Formats: sequence, C-alpha cells, structure tokens
Amino acid sequence: MIECWRPWMQRALQLAELGRGRTSPNPLVGALVLDARGDLVGEGFHARAGSPHAEVHALRQAGARARGGTAIVTLEPCCHHGRTPPCSEALLAAGIQRVVIAMRDPDPRVSGGGIARLEASGVEVISGICEAEAQALNRSFIHRVQAGRPLGILKWAMSLDGRTALPNGASQWISGPPARAWVHSLRAQCDAVIVGGGTVRADNPLLTSRGQRHPEPLRVVLSRHLDLPSDAQIWDQSSATTLVLHSASAPLAMQQHLDAHGIEHLSLDDCTPRGALEHLAQRGCNQVLWECGPGLASAALQQGCVQQVAAVIAPKLLGGLSARTPLGDLGLEDVNQAEPWSANQLRTLGDDWLIQLNPDPLPPQGIH
Amino acid sequence: MIECWRPWMQRALQLAELGRGRTSPNPLVGALVLDARGDLVGEGFHARAGSPHAEVHALRQAGARARGGTAIVTLEPCCHHGRTPPCSEALLAAGIQRVVIAMRDPDPRVSGGGIARLEASGVEVISGICEAEAQALNRSFIHRVQAGRPLGILKWAMSLDGRTALPNGASQWISGPPARAWVHSLRAQCDAVIVGGGTVRADNPLLTSRGQRHPEPLRVVLSRHLDLPSDAQIWDQSSATTLVLHSASAPLAMQQHLDAHGIEHLSLDDCTPRGALEHLAQRGCNQVLWECGPGLASAALQQGCVQQVAAVIAPKLLGGLSARTPLGDLGLEDVNQAEPWSANQLRTLGDDWLIQLNPDPLPPQGIH
Repeated sequence: MIECWRPWMQRALQLAELGRGRTSPNPLVGALVLDARGDLVGEGFHARAGSPHAEVHALRQAGARARGGTAIVTLEPCCHHGRTPPCSEALLAAGIQRVVIAMRDPDPRVSGGGIARLEASGVEVISGICEAEAQALNRSFIHRVQAGRPLGILKWAMSLDGRTALPNGASQWISGPPARAWVHSLRAQCDAVIVGGGTVRADNPLLTSRGQRHPEPLRVVLSRHLDLPSDAQIWDQSSATTLVLHSASAPLAMQQHLDAHGIEHLSLDDCTPRGALEHLAQRGCNQVLWECGPGLASAALQQGCVQQVAAVIAPKLLGGLSARTPLGDLGLEDVNQAEPWSANQLRTLGDDWLIQLNPDPLPPQGIH
Repeated sequence: MIECWRPWMQRALQLAELGRGRTSPNPLVGALVLDARGDLVGEGFHARAGSPHAEVHALRQAGARARGGTAIVTLEPCCHHGRTPPCSEALLAAGIQRVVIAMRDPDPRVSGGGIARLEASGVEVISGICEAEAQALNRSFIHRVQAGRPLGILKWAMSLDGRTALPNGASQWISGPPARAWVHSLRAQCDAVIVGGGTVRADNPLLTSRGQRHPEPLRVVLSRHLDLPSDAQIWDQSSATTLVLHSASAPLAMQQHLDAHGIEHLSLDDCTPRGALEHLAQRGCNQVLWECGPGLASAALQQGCVQQVAAVIAPKLLGGLSARTPLGDLGLEDVNQAEPWSANQLRTLGDDWLIQLNPDPLPPQGIH
C-alpha cells in the first residue's frame, strides 16, 4: 500500500523543486490533490515566502473535487498562523479524507502538530513516503531549523596544483566560462554570498547570479576591522544588496563611508563565521555560499559553518610557493584527523572539473 | 581497401600493448601474418629488449604458410642489425609478398629504410593504417627518440585543497588503497622513478611497483649535494636497483657511504632534471615517473621534462598555509600564461579521484 503512494510523492517532490532558491526562510513544498476516485485534480508548489503554500494552490485547482479526496504533501502541513493561515485547516475545510506526507516539519512550531490536528478531525494520515528524498530536498531548511544557522557551501576555483591565485595575486580567470556560469547558478540557489575584506580588496567581485535570482542573493562582507576599499563593485547596489558585518571596534570613518553610500552595516558581538551565520539565520537565510579567501574559509570550516564544498579545478598548473591556496590552517597534526567526506560528486564544466563534497542529491527525476 | 586492414592492425596493436613496461629502450610492436588466402596464421609481439621482435614470433608461428602472404606490423620493420637481425630481411626470407605498416620507425637508424628495403625487393608496402593509434601506443619511445630524453610523467597525491602533506610534514596516507595500488601499476609502466633528496628524507619511500614489473623500475635520486639520510628504504636493493645522481662537488663522505652499500652513484656535469633525463635516455629509459616534491617538480616542468601529469585527489581537507603543495614557483606573472592542458582524463580510484593531464590514450579495445 505504501508503494502505491511513491509515484505520486515523487511528482510532488518534483513540483516542490520548482521553488528552489526563492522560498527562504520557508521550505520547498509540493502538493497534489486526488479526488475520491484517485484521479489527479490539483497540483501546487510553494513559490515564494509570503505567497500561498503548496496545499492552497493544489486545493484551489481541485475545487469541489477535493471533497473526500487525498492530499499528497512533501512536508507535514502547518498548523500555525504565519504569514498565511494554517494548511491543516485548509485541508479540513476542503473535505480531504486522507493526507499522505513525506516527512514531519522540523519547525518546532509544527513538528507533529499538523498531523495531530488532521488525525483529531478523523483524517487518515500516512507519513514517511519518500522520506529520505524529502529530507534531501529541504536539507538547508532542516539544517537552519535544527542548527540555528544556514547551511554553508564553500566554493573555490583552483588550478590542478591547488592554487587560487598567482604569487602576485592575479586570479582572473583560472576557470573557464562554463564553470563561471555554474557558479552564478550556484549563487542563485543561495540566500547570501559571503566574502571577507581580503577578497573585496584582491578580486573586487560582483558576487551576483547575473540575474538568475530575483532578488539577487544578499552580498555579505565579514570584515572585523572594516579594512575595505572605498571603491568596490559591491558598493553599487543597483543589482544586489550588500550587508557589511564588523566588530564594535571597527573604525568610525569607514562606517560613515558605508552610511554615506547607503550600505547597511552591523556591529556583531560575535564577529566570526558562526556569529555571522546566526545573524543571517535570523534574517531568513536557509543557505549561504562562502566565496572567501583561505583565512575565512578555514575559520568557517573549523566553526562548523561549512556543510558542502564545491571545488572547480582547471587543467592548468600555476605553481608558486607563496601563491594563494583554498584554505588556511586547520590545526591538523595527523593525516588521519582529516575525515574523508562522503557522498561526493564529480562532473566536468567545459574544460574544467567540479568536485563537490557532500552536495545535495540530484532532484527527483520524473515518475517511475 | 585501406579500411579492410584496420581490424587486423587493431589486433596487432592489442598484441603490441602486451609488452608495455618491458620493452625499453625498444618500442612496443605487434605483428600478424596472413597466408596467401588471407587467413591468420601467425601472431607475435615484442616482449622484452633483447628478445625476438614481433615479426619473428609471427613468422615462426606461420612457418611455410607465410610464403606469398601478408604481414601486418604496427611499426616499420627494422633494417639494421641491433641485438637481433633486421626484420625486413626475415620477412623477405619468409616469402612475404605484402607488408602493412601503421607508422614509420622514428629511429634515425630505420626511418623509411625498412620500407625501402622491402619495396626494393618487390614487396608491396601499405603504410599509415591506424597511424594515430600506433603513435599513441609508442608515445614514450617516439618522444625519447625525438627529444633525446624519456617521456616524463609527474604524479602527486593531494587533498582537495591542494596539500600534499600537513604543515608538520605528515603525508601518509592522503589517498586510499585503490589509488596507491594504481600508483604501483603506473610505476610498472615506467623505466625509472625519480625523487629528490627531500622526498627521501621526508617520506622514506620504497618506490617499487610491488612486484608488478620485473625488473622493478630503476629508483633514481637526484640530489645535487647528496644531502641524504644514511638509513633509507631505497638503500636496500633486494627488490629494486637504486641510482644516485649528484653534482661533482657533492660531499665525498656520502659518496663513500653509497659505495659501501653498493649503490651506484654518478656525478653529472648538468645535475638538473634535464641532465638527469639525458643520462637516463642513454641508459635506455623511454618513460620516467617524477614522484618528487614541489621544488624538483616545478624545475622538471620548467625544463620541459614533464609531458603528462597524474594528480590523485582525496576527498579530504588538510589546510595549512605552510603545508607542502604539488609545485613550487613556475615564474608566472599572468594567469593566461598558464596554458590549459588538453586531452585530459578523469576517473575515480576508490574514494579518490584521478585527474590526468595529457595522458596516453587507452589501448585499442578488441576488433570492431
């Protein structure tokens, strides 16, 4: 009996995937409605925070045919009033008799409450269908809810000999156009892109998805001492917003410079990768991209702020004992302390390679 | 008409491949003999320098049925007396009426002379069948004949962040058992394995194919100043031979230590990667493996002593600003000076990855 729900749930997971990159702080959710005979009469997905939930879209499409029917939902329906009314109430109002759920909502405001509300009203609830796939789909949301910090992806591009720049600092371009386009699409899946002051000074990056995401991910500069250039591409906020995080002791002159340019800046008590992520979680970020230099990258790793790594490798040799490398010190004394990462992936990007440590699984592919 | 010879030549190339790693300074050669009706009556390949050439094996197997027949040979038959008599004479003596050749012998002692000898005796010669495959098969032999130096392969194993050791020098083991076994098989395809003094001091390596090649590749230590430990695994020559190359000014005490242990050592006027390879070419090496540290590796690259790169990448992050990297300085001032390598390959080795720059193509696969 469980098996018969899997194809429907896979379709709901596919729908949920359509919202990727636009739902934060909310999860990705897809929903189907079957009528009392088992025919598909409604589909929906959550497209954007503040817009209707997936169930509402599917119920609207189904209309009166939802009565006595089944709802297939990738995540437990909510039971709390957020920016939209609780979906469990909407399902009951539509006369749904059975709800099939992939996974419980890890949000402590829900977490079983939606299921309890439905069952208390006599609705049959079947849960755990395609649970692993649903957890993978919402990995960043689940991480943010459980850890209190967005999921962190660390990305770099390097030559095959592990260099991210020449000894003279030159780094444009190590990777080719297809790899750089892929990085833009990666940014489009993230709520914020984080760099340190050194990257702003050395590379003067734009840090946008080149229009693939609306709005563009928040550009975050984590710079304890505000040692930043007065001219930089990220100070131009016509295409994307910039946020500067610094310590309380940062020079007032630079704070005033940022004010004059309308750049939001904030003094953090804990001006570290972890402190920055806690702040970004409060701002609704589920997933962030670290595009920083070796010092900040190794600090982020050591503070548990990196769950995935994406390394673009170019078929070039740059050399240079003093050349920049992806990471600074990690404090290891024995090679065996470096735990191998798992579930890794490898692909080509034009003439370059992409190695991903612990990436998200690929989205569900069609109904099997 | 040319097309009909391709399947036969592919079979001959397959046979030639069977000698890989054992024929230096000679090339890999495979040969077939078809009788006058076109039936296969003899096969052979060159198995080891000093042993009979491929044509001789195939002719012996064919016996009297070679008369009036066709020989298919992956390389122009030789016309000079080396350790064995010239094959062009053997083909004529056997009454072969047609010889199909993949490529001319680049050896200046042959280079068209074998073809001329056959044609002068009225034998039909068809050449250029599967020529690109034959050149790929004998890439290292051709390189040694043309450049006067063996083909060089540079190999290293690193973490994904480009580190070949921890800051404290520990490097065992970055890669896993399948990758290490692959390195042993790579050594088995090389005539010599070259390290510098730093690698002997830091890693005390064994540098053998673990019995996959008989004899084991020559272990070469290139150490200008003989700054070497008195105890090292490579001083034990029970499984493999060691050769130390140094400058004329190297300390006599260490030279005497090597003499006392029966280790061959040699003072080179040009004690550089290029000078070492010129010496190894004279010793009959077609292909060598650089398994050295960053300083020697970048010198070898800069001196044109590296034609292929094999980088094993482990899904680990080691970090460490002072940690060892694959290469030292290459003197680049602009990223665009780093020419991308071509014809690159990528595969997994257990949990690790192998990226090869400009590797040998895969051997021919069966008759199509």
